Amino acid sequence: MSKRVFATPQEAEAAFYRAFAQRDLDGMMAVWADDEDIICVHPVGERLQGQAAIRHSWQSIFSNGPRMSFRIEEPRVLRDERLAVHQVKERIRFEDEQDFQPPVMATNIYRLGNGGWRMVLHHASPTPPLEKPSGTVIH
Amino acid sequence: MSKRVFATPQEAEAAFYRAFAQRDLDGMMAVWADDEDIICVHPVGERLQGQAAIRHSWQSIFSNGPRMSFRIEEPRVLRDERLAVHQVKERIRFEDEQDFQPPVMATNIYRLGNGGWRMVLHHASPTPPLEKPSGTVIH
Repeated sequence: MSKRVFATPQEAEAAFYRAFAQRDLDGMMAVWADDEDIICVHPVGERLQGQAAIRHSWQSIFSNGPRMSFRIEEPRVLRDERLAVHQVKERIRFEDEQDFQPPVMATNIYRLGNGGWRMVLHHASPTPPLEKPSGTVIH
Repeated sequence: MSKRVFATPQEAEAAFYRAFAQRDLDGMMAVWADDEDIICVHPVGERLQGQAAIRHSWQSIFSNGPRMSFRIEEPRVLRDERLAVHQVKERIRFEDEQDFQPPVMATNIYRLGNGGWRMVLHHASPTPPLEKPSGTVIH
């Protein structure tokens, strides 16, 4: 199976969150570089390194977790020739819930290689629950 | 006051953890780039951006938190010409405690500018508490 080539870090990132939302394990791993130095830190998780450990973690998330949809907010970008850092706020909504969860902070790093831009690091961490707004709730 | 120039990302990182341990606010902010795009995410924290917000957060940590010493373990490095990503495990020991805390995962990013290598992103997140080893404890 030939892998898709991502011409920009943005294309790789879109494929990452699409695979995440669709629980598409092959699609997810196609975003990651084929290297043993890739790193993934899930919220409140240990550091995982390399294709096998990272694939296993996504397989577990896709098998055991609820279905989710994503909204990516306030991206911040740092760029060099062959590295791109995207710092984003992931807003996640679980299946059958009305509201989005408090933001997850994610640092996503992409590297340009022969196969285009691929993810080399994903570091996600939780934030405190949002304060309920005070005052009258207007429906 | 002229700022120190860090010739390598490693020098900048050493200064970062030295300032952290010594609660040296000016030393800490001298490690960070003089840019409004710098980003800091403390464990379970929101994203902070820019010199003022980041300085304020370190001031609060240095004023209110316990004194700490650091051991930096298992650094992983991704490098490009002008960006360097260090993924490290921070082991923190609080003053008056014998043991180190469970590791904090930190992604530290440095950028090469006219003033040498300076920090542009620090993203730290907690890990679950370590399992107590079973069996006899040997002192």
